Amino acid sequence: MNNKPTLFTSLSPALLHLYDLSNSIVVIIDVLRATSTIATALYNGAKSIIPVDSVTRCIEIGKQIDGITAGERDGKVAEGLIYGNSPFEYPRDFIEGKTLVLTTTNGTRLLQMALDKGAKEIITGSFPNLSAVCEHLMEVKQNVILGCAAWKDRVNMEDMLFAGAVISTIKNNFSVNCDSSHLSVTIYKKAEKDLFGFMKKNDASHYHRLMGFGLEKDIRYCLTPDGANVLPIYDEGKLLIKSL
Amino acid sequence: MNNKPTLFTSLSPALLHLYDLSNSIVVIIDVLRATSTIATALYNGAKSIIPVDSVTRCIEIGKQIDGITAGERDGKVAEGLIYGNSPFEYPRDFIEGKTLVLTTTNGTRLLQMALDKGAKEIITGSFPNLSAVCEHLMEVKQNVILGCAAWKDRVNMEDMLFAGAVISTIKNNFSVNCDSSHLSVTIYKKAEKDLFGFMKKNDASHYHRLMGFGLEKDIRYCLTPDGANVLPIYDEGKLLIKSL
Repeated sequence: MNNKPTLFTSLSPALLHLYDLSNSIVVIIDVLRATSTIATALYNGAKSIIPVDSVTRCIEIGKQIDGITAGERDGKVAEGLIYGNSPFEYPRDFIEGKTLVLTTTNGTRLLQMALDKGAKEIITGSFPNLSAVCEHLMEVKQNVILGCAAWKDRVNMEDMLFAGAVISTIKNNFSVNCDSSHLSVTIYKKAEKDLFGFMKKNDASHYHRLMGFGLEKDIRYCLTPDGANVLPIYDEGKLLIKSL
Repeated sequence: MNNKPTLFTSLSPALLHLYDLSNSIVVIIDVLRATSTIATALYNGAKSIIPVDSVTRCIEIGKQIDGITAGERDGKVAEGLIYGNSPFEYPRDFIEGKTLVLTTTNGTRLLQMALDKGAKEIITGSFPNLSAVCEHLMEVKQNVILGCAAWKDRVNMEDMLFAGAVISTIKNNFSVNCDSSHLSVTIYKKAEKDLFGFMKKNDASHYHRLMGFGLEKDIRYCLTPDGANVLPIYDEGKLLIKSL
């Protein structure tokens, strides 16, 4: 008899409804760049991050709590907000002790969906906090849904790579009856020696988009494991570090 | 300037709405086993195949035209229908000159969706007719959407493998700005030397489902290129062979 918890991968927000969130930990994955930035800001001492699903709400909450408003639409700082979605905008000497109010095209929207669908627990995952995510999932032994934020619902390479990295590490502790998960591992195994090179060689759409904005440094950082190894966990409207 | 037609891959019917079908040829892909069976029945002389989206409608049309009613739900012959979804049920000495009325869990449903969304042309693809599909797409030089039927909207391995096989062959003739397509090629390249072995090794859910029904022979046939190399094209409610 197999008593292991289950693990599924949802490759797009448009597929999230296929899975039972109410009984699962949902890992929000938006590698380029929302969840990488969330890990980084918290690692650098941000008090908390309030993810919101619209620019209007971002501005509103920013005013109420005197927070840093940040967010992007289509890869650029959204009108009315002050900061963007690059992890390099949030070094310790700027973000320590502050609250970041963040809205992004895909990642924060998916988080809101997971919340609406009653996820048991929501954490965020990215290469910079890969180990923290894996350790938490192995420790708590609950069902897991890896939720890729994708790009406007279209499956993307980097989120699938991260899902594959997580599954490669923790799969022996879970029952994985999910082709999307197995496919993610195959892709990751093929790519793991040089994730940046893999994205470039295989014409990842997000690679081209961000390179077009001159953001190679962001891409490289967001594909490097454990540069900001904390576990952001959602609690009453905020993402906070859960101590490991 | 790039004047090549575009190519996208939709990994699940739940993602089909993201693409512009009205300006594209849609390839319906349901490797295990609907589209493999469609190619095989036509190759073996079936007059035409009428895809329908419900068992009730299958029975109704079967009576009206004295056709062979066939179809499955959850991998088994549906109640009230006579034949199933195995290509081996349709040898020449049985199917020649007859009309097959077919309903399946995923493939015929996707075809209906493509029709409802106004696809410019609909053809069906599977390994048994891989070359016919590729040759047609290269010849007509139209935008292409590879539509994976998946399994109840969950992405599956074998349909993604077939998408990868098609793209590997025709990609130089198309503009491919689509991570799902690039990912499919990566998976296919990894698997192409032994598709059956790849499905087995990577725990494909459909591999297990069909092996559980004793259908190894079906899986092996459905993963072998060009065993029934015809081009089924949808025209006024029927799938017919388009001569190459």
